[in-house]
Amino acid sequence: MNGFARLPEPPYYAVIFSSRRNGDDEAGYAAAAERMLELAAQQLGYLGAESTRGADGFGITVSYWESEAAIGAWKHQAEHAATRAHGRKHWYEHFELRVAKVTRAYGKPKN
Amino acid sequence: MNGFARLPEPPYYAVIFSSRRNGDDEAGYAAAAERMLELAAQQLGYLGAESTRGADGFGITVSYWESEAAIGAWKHQAEHAATRAHGRKHWYEHFELRVAKVTRAYGKPKN
Repeated sequence: MNGFARLPEPPYYAVIFSSRRNGDDEAGYAAAAERMLELAAQQLGYLGAESTRGADGFGITVSYWESEAAIGAWKHQAEHAATRAHGRKHWYEHFELRVAKVTRAYGKPKN
Repeated sequence: MNGFARLPEPPYYAVIFSSRRNGDDEAGYAAAAERMLELAAQQLGYLGAESTRGADGFGITVSYWESEAAIGAWKHQAEHAATRAHGRKHWYEHFELRVAKVTRAYGKPKN
């Protein structure tokens, strides 16, 4: 993933995940992050994601979903749940997750 | 702004702004970005913001607001509107803006 998600017209749902890495296990983290995006993309109701992290270790990933049910199914996907549990312990100094319903969107250039 | 917003319990509103810089006018852009965050923080209904940009020029800023009315007032704030118009022309190769209602949130460590 490298840039903008191509999304349908709203409404749809967003999971806003903000995190600060602890700096440990960069290789393990990078491999898992790539795998999670690959896995998410196979989930029913997945629409896309955007992600970035600055040099200070603070990152934001927003994934987009057709429905709250799709977000719930992703949360309970077994490999994702296991990786998430590992990440809480080993990769993140701090994270915040917010689930939101997108009601309006626009951009330049137009999709 | 350098890290996590401290937010109340949901519901509240989010403006998710994804952008790719064109690489021009880094000093002007950085000064304006700082000024916009300072100005946003003075707006009624502003709750906080989180922002990061990777080395590839792709960035995500999420600002949080008490209400859609507060987001509308910020959109029409004169200095912000002028800076936004300038930014569309001079700073961004591409951007996408999404307005969303946050309904659930959790984190580690707890706020």
